[in-house]
Amino acid sequence: MRWTDIADTRCSIARALSVVGDRWTLLLLREAFLGARRFEEYRANTGAARHLVSERLALLVEHGVLERVRYSDRPARFEYTLTDKGAGLHPVIVSLLAWGDRWMPHEDGRSLTLVHGPCGATVTPELRCPDCDGRIEPAGTRHVVAGTARTGTLA
Amino acid sequence: MRWTDIADTRCSIARALSVVGDRWTLLLLREAFLGARRFEEYRANTGAARHLVSERLALLVEHGVLERVRYSDRPARFEYTLTDKGAGLHPVIVSLLAWGDRWMPHEDGRSLTLVHGPCGATVTPELRCPDCDGRIEPAGTRHVVAGTARTGTLA
Repeated sequence: MRWTDIADTRCSIARALSVVGDRWTLLLLREAFLGARRFEEYRANTGAARHLVSERLALLVEHGVLERVRYSDRPARFEYTLTDKGAGLHPVIVSLLAWGDRWMPHEDGRSLTLVHGPCGATVTPELRCPDCDGRIEPAGTRHVVAGTARTGTLA
Repeated sequence: MRWTDIADTRCSIARALSVVGDRWTLLLLREAFLGARRFEEYRANTGAARHLVSERLALLVEHGVLERVRYSDRPARFEYTLTDKGAGLHPVIVSLLAWGDRWMPHEDGRSLTLVHGPCGATVTPELRCPDCDGRIEPAGTRHVVAGTARTGTLA
């Protein structure tokens, strides 16, 4: 199977990955959440090659994850900012951060920390159930696949 | 910059992506959370080419995300199951699922739903602050980059 087919599969994870399942794309999104706007900021802060930045930003605009806004007429220059759809990827980026902090720590410590505005705490966010407020953990979650008998629960 | 260099950067997101920043890898992890164990399950359920499955599973074993366990001696056969480090990626996969459900819905509806074992609710998990229980949202979160003046907050 090729990724051009995957975009049409019924699995939401696969469809999400057809847009953001790529290292550079996710690193560019990190920058967007850190407030990057201009092409040069995205390029310098990720260290990605110019053509990669260009191609990935265009793809994210095409899929409505970033918005391309003209900020100068002569010469024509553009900024790239998150749409609501793009902002919806915050949990993905934050979860990658938390996992890297926990399981692949760097000897010099964390380079990026999150501060929860409303309470001011430095946080490692948790995934919670909106119904009972309990933590969502793999061992306590049933993954139900529609139209099949497959239900996965980790022991 | 190349991805072989990225593995050493101080950013935890980048280090995490050096291991899991790849479509097929994340799709294989979806299968691991759904209970896949054998090579053929991973291959059939993702639709990935045999050499991709083989290479990605080996990489995940090398990084301690999956454990390779022999379940038959003659012929020698192995199962691949999540380690604790691998189980720690649950929020990443669940967040991709929630985003795909919300922003790239399929005309036939959701193929994968999550049921929170302790309360029995069908859930879309939320990212919460462990200190105040409030939701973690990009507009209310300060992203503080160590050793620089960079702090990103989305308006």
